[in-house]
Amino acid sequence: MNNLETFENPRPGRYFSITHENPEFTSVCPMTGLPDFGNIIVNYVPDKLCVELKSLKYYFLAYRDKGIFYEEITNQILDDLVAVCAPLEMEIISEWGTRGGMTSTIVASYIKE
Amino acid sequence: MNNLETFENPRPGRYFSITHENPEFTSVCPMTGLPDFGNIIVNYVPDKLCVELKSLKYYFLAYRDKGIFYEEITNQILDDLVAVCAPLEMEIISEWGTRGGMTSTIVASYIKE
Amino acid sequence: MNNLETFENPRPGRYFSITHENPEFTSVCPMTGLPDFGNIIVNYVPDKLCVELKSLKYYFLAYRDKGIFYEEITNQILDDLVAVCAPLEMEIISEWGTRGGMTSTIVASYIKE
Amino acid sequence: MNNLETFENPRPGRYFSITHENPEFTSVCPMTGLPDFGNIIVNYVPDKLCVELKSLKYYFLAYRDKGIFYEEITNQILDDLVAVCAPLEMEIISEWGTRGGMTSTIVASYIKE
Amino acid sequence: MNNLETFENPRPGRYFSITHENPEFTSVCPMTGLPDFGNIIVNYVPDKLCVELKSLKYYFLAYRDKGIFYEEITNQILDDLVAVCAPLEMEIISEWGTRGGMTSTIVASYIKE
Amino acid sequence: MNNLETFENPRPGRYFSITHENPEFTSVCPMTGLPDFGNIIVNYVPDKLCVELKSLKYYFLAYRDKGIFYEEITNQILDDLVAVCAPLEMEIISEWGTRGGMTSTIVASYIKE
Amino acid sequence: MNNLETFENPRPGRYFSITHENPEFTSVCPMTGLPDFGNIIVNYVPDKLCVELKSLKYYFLAYRDKGIFYEEITNQILDDLVAVCAPLEMEIISEWGTRGGMTSTIVASYIKE
Amino acid sequence: MNNLETFENPRPGRYFSITHENPEFTSVCPMTGLPDFGNIIVNYVPDKLCVELKSLKYYFLAYRDKGIFYEEITNQILDDLVAVCAPLEMEIISEWGTRGGMTSTIVASYIKE
Amino acid sequence: MNNLETFENPRPGRYFSITHENPEFTSVCPMTGLPDFGNIIVNYVPDKLCVELKSLKYYFLAYRDKGIFYEEITNQILDDLVAVCAPLEMEIISEWGTRGGMTSTIVASYIKE
Amino acid sequence: MNNLETFENPRPGRYFSITHENPEFTSVCPMTGLPDFGNIIVNYVPDKLCVELKSLKYYFLAYRDKGIFYEEITNQILDDLVAVCAPLEMEIISEWGTRGGMTSTIVASYIKE
Repeated sequence: MNNLETFENPRPGRYFSITHENPEFTSVCPMTGLPDFGNIIVNYVPDKLCVELKSLKYYFLAYRDKGIFYEEITNQILDDLVAVCAPLEMEIISEWGTRGGMTSTIVASYIKE
Repeated sequence: MNNLETFENPRPGRYFSITHENPEFTSVCPMTGLPDFGNIIVNYVPDKLCVELKSLKYYFLAYRDKGIFYEEITNQILDDLVAVCAPLEMEIISEWGTRGGMTSTIVASYIKE
Repeated sequence: MNNLETFENPRPGRYFSITHENPEFTSVCPMTGLPDFGNIIVNYVPDKLCVELKSLKYYFLAYRDKGIFYEEITNQILDDLVAVCAPLEMEIISEWGTRGGMTSTIVASYIKE
Repeated sequence: MNNLETFENPRPGRYFSITHENPEFTSVCPMTGLPDFGNIIVNYVPDKLCVELKSLKYYFLAYRDKGIFYEEITNQILDDLVAVCAPLEMEIISEWGTRGGMTSTIVASYIKE
Repeated sequence: MNNLETFENPRPGRYFSITHENPEFTSVCPMTGLPDFGNIIVNYVPDKLCVELKSLKYYFLAYRDKGIFYEEITNQILDDLVAVCAPLEMEIISEWGTRGGMTSTIVASYIKE
Repeated sequence: MNNLETFENPRPGRYFSITHENPEFTSVCPMTGLPDFGNIIVNYVPDKLCVELKSLKYYFLAYRDKGIFYEEITNQILDDLVAVCAPLEMEIISEWGTRGGMTSTIVASYIKE
Repeated sequence: MNNLETFENPRPGRYFSITHENPEFTSVCPMTGLPDFGNIIVNYVPDKLCVELKSLKYYFLAYRDKGIFYEEITNQILDDLVAVCAPLEMEIISEWGTRGGMTSTIVASYIKE
Repeated sequence: MNNLETFENPRPGRYFSITHENPEFTSVCPMTGLPDFGNIIVNYVPDKLCVELKSLKYYFLAYRDKGIFYEEITNQILDDLVAVCAPLEMEIISEWGTRGGMTSTIVASYIKE
Repeated sequence: MNNLETFENPRPGRYFSITHENPEFTSVCPMTGLPDFGNIIVNYVPDKLCVELKSLKYYFLAYRDKGIFYEEITNQILDDLVAVCAPLEMEIISEWGTRGGMTSTIVASYIKE
Repeated sequence: MNNLETFENPRPGRYFSITHENPEFTSVCPMTGLPDFGNIIVNYVPDKLCVELKSLKYYFLAYRDKGIFYEEITNQILDDLVAVCAPLEMEIISEWGTRGGMTSTIVASYIKE
C-alpha cells in the first residue's frame, strides 16, 4: 500500500512548512461496509526530504477499498508519511462527512525529538 | 441514561485529538417545559479508550425528554464521558438556539492530573 | 393535534405575503424510531385570516413524538394551515438534516382556485 | 407620526428604482410589551416625488415606543409612504428577529393603477 | 445495478417537489481509471410513486467502481429514476471536482408529456 | 436599573465558561438623542453564582431609553454583572452599528484577584 | 466632465453584455459637504461602440469633488454613457455606504427603442 | 490555435446542459503587454457533439501569450466552440481581475436558429 | 491637519480596548496622483483620554486630497493619535484596494513604556 | 530576473509590518510543462528598506514562463526579497490551485539574527 516517493528538500537548512489538502478521500467503514468520505490535510516541516505530490495522490487512492476506522486511518497516514520523509514536524487532520447526524475530525501530530 | 461504549485507542502512546460534533441535540427546559435545541461538540485526547460513535449518538438521544439547564447538560456530558473513557483532556462545547433574543454557549473542560 | 389559531388580516384587500421559518422542528422517523430534524418554512398570502404565531409554535411542537415521513409532514402542515386560515396562496418548504449521507428538501404549495 | 418629506424626482419620465434598507428598526409587541427588532427595506419606483432620506429615518424612529404587530407595521409603512410620494410601484419588506424559535418576514407591495 | 425501490405518493393529486442531494458520489473515469467525485442532486415532482431514500443511496453506491463519463452518468441516473417512479417532472444535477484546473456541472431534465 | 438575578453554579469547583450574546441591544446617544444599536456579548467563568438569563434580558431592556456612551455602557455592564455574580473572570464585548461611516467595538474585562 | 472614449464593438451583430464594477466611487453630499462612497455597476449591451475602460475610470474620478445626490448621480451616469456609446440596453446600479443607519441602492436603466 | 476535439452526445435527443468553469485563464493585454487573469465559464446545450474536456484545457492554454481584449476573447471562444460542436445553445461568461480599481464581466451567447 | 479631540476615560484604572473601523478612507497616491481607497482600523487601550469619534472622522477626511504613501499614512495616524490621547497601547491597521493586481495591508503599533 | 527596487523605511526605528498579496501569480510546472496558478503573500517587518510595489509586480511577472516547483518558488522569493531589503522578519505564503484533486500551501519565513 505504501509506494510514497520523495524528493530532496530544496532548502534543507530552513524551517518552512508544506501543506497538501485532499478533499476527495474515501475509504470503507469496517463495521457497515459502507464508504466513508473525508478531507485529509497533511501539514509538515521537511528535514531532508519532501513528499512527492503524485505518489501522495496514489497513496491516498489505495484506501478506496480498505476497511478502516477514522482514528486508525489518521494515525496510519501519519506513520507512513513520517517513515518515508522523516520530517521535523508533521500533522494530519482528517475531517469526515455526517454519520448518525454527527461529523468527526481527527488530528494527529509528530515532532522529531 | 449512560450506556456509552468504548473501544481501545489504536495509538495509545501518541497525543492526538478526536472531535465529534452533533448539531441535532435537543432537551427540555425545566422552567417552561419547552424544547431546547443545541449543537454539542466533544473534543478529547484519548488515553487508553476512545468513545464509540454509535453509543455516543444514543447517549445524546437520551436527553430528548429530559428537563435540564444548559450549564448542567454541558457539565453532565463532560462528567459522563470522562467517567467512561478517562481521557488525557476533554472539552465539551454546547451552542444553543435563540431564547429571549439571545444565544448562549457553554464550554467545560477537563485535564487529567 | 391541530389547535392552530388565527387573527383577522389587517389589510384584507391587499395581496401581501407572510413567511415564518422554524429551524427547530423535530419529528420521529417511522422506520427507525430515530428523530428527524428539519427547518420548516411557511410562506403564504392571507385572505381574511392570518396564522397566530404562538399557536403555530405549539402546532409544530406536537410533531416531536410523532412517527411520520418527510413527504407526509410537509403535505400535512400544508393541509392543516390551509384548513385553518384559507389563504390565497401557501407554500411549505421542509429542509432535512443528513441521513445516509444525503439531505432532502420537500416543497408543497396551494393556490386558491 | 407622519412627517415624511419628499423632493422632486430628478428624472420624472424615466422608470428607475430606489431602495433604502434600515437594519436598525425597533417597535414594541402589543401582546408582551417587549421590543421587536427588524430590518426594513423600502423599494420603489418614483413618479414625481422621491422620499427624503432624513425624514424617512425620523419616520422609522417614531415606531420605537409604539405597540404594533409585524403585519400591521409593514402595511402601515407602505400606506404612509405611498400617501406621501405617490410612486409608480412600491414594496416594503420587513425581516424580524427570532421569537419563539422562529423568524418572520412580511412583504407588502403596491402598484399604481 | 438498478434495485431502486418506490413508495406510494402520500398526496397523489397535488403538484409538489422532492429534492435529494448526495455530496458523496464517486465513480471512475473510463479514460484514466482514476476516481471522480461529485455532488448529485435529484429534484422531482412525483406522480403516483416516490423514490425510497435508502434504495437511492444503494443505487448511488453501485457507481463506485463503474467507469463512466459525467454526461453519461447524469443521463443514466435520470433514465433509471424516471423508469422506476414515472414522475411528472425530474431534474438531475451533477457537480464535479476540479480536473485539469476546471470544474464541470451537468443538468438533465425530463417532463412527462 | 439593576434587578439581575443569579442561581447557584451547578459545578462550583470546575473552571468553565458561559457566553450570552444579545444582538438586540439599544440605548440612546447622549449627544444627539438618537438611538444606538449594538450586539452585546457576555463571557464569564462563574465562581459560586451564574447570571439568570431572563433577568439579564430585562437588565439589557432597561438601557432602551437611557442616554449613555459606548465606553460607559460596556464598563457599566461589566461592573453590574461582576457585582451581582462575583465571577472568576468576565469579559464584555459591545459591537456597534455604523455612525459617521465608522463601526466601533469596545472590550472590557475583569479577572478576580 | 465627460471625456468618455469608445472603441468599435468587435462583434457588432451579436447581442452580448459587458459589465464594469467600480467599488471605489466617491462624490460629495450637497447637503452636508461630506463625502459619499459607493459601488457603481455599469451593465450594457453594445450596439456599434463599447466604452473604453480607462476613460471610464477617469470619468468616475471627476465626481470626487462634485456635490450631487444619489438619484442624480445614477441617472447622470446613465445619460452620459448612453450619449457616448448608444447601446442597445444599459443599466446603472449604485450601492451606497451607511448614512443615518441606512444603506441605499439606485437602479436606472435604458432600452433603445 | 484551435485543436478542440469533440465526442458524440450520449443522449442526442434530450435537451440537457453542460457547464465547464476554468478559473485559471490568462492572456495578455494588447495595450500594456501585461497579463490579464480571468475565470471562463462555458455553458451549452449539446446537439450531436460534446466538447472534449482535455482539448478544451489546451485550447484555453493557447491564449497564454496572446494579446487580446476581454470583449474579443469572449466572443472568439464562443465562435470557436460553436464552430466545433454546433450546439443548440451556448453561453460564454468571462470574469476578470481588478484593473484600474474595476472588475469586468462579459457574457456572450448563441442560440441555434 | 490635526484637530483630534479627546474625552476623559470613564474607567481610567481598568485595562480595556476600543476599536474604530473606517471603511471609507481615501487619500491620493503621490506617484500617480490617483486616489487610493482603504479601510482604517484604530484599536487602542486608553489611559486617561479617549479619542472623540466625530473629530476622528474629520481627521480622516483631511487625508482626502493629500498625496501620501500607505506606509507613511499608517504611521502618521499612529503618531497623531498617540500624541493626542497618550494610550497604553495602540494599533493601526490599514487595508488597501487592488493596485497592479495586488492588495496591501500595513500594521503599526505602539506600547507605552 | 531580479530587478526589485526599494525605498527608505519612513519610520526606521518602529517595529511594524507590511503585507502584499498577489492572487495573479503564474509559473510553469517543470514536470508537465503546464502552467501553475498561485496566490503569493509577502509579509515583512522592514528594517531600513521597504520593497517598492511596482518592481515587486514585475518581479512576479518574471516567473510566468519559468519552470519551477512550488517549494522552490516560495523559498526563492524569500531569498530574493530578503537579499534586496534586509528585513527584520519576512514570511512568504504561496497557495496553489487544485492539481490531482489536491491543493497545496507553502510557508517559508526568515528572522534576522
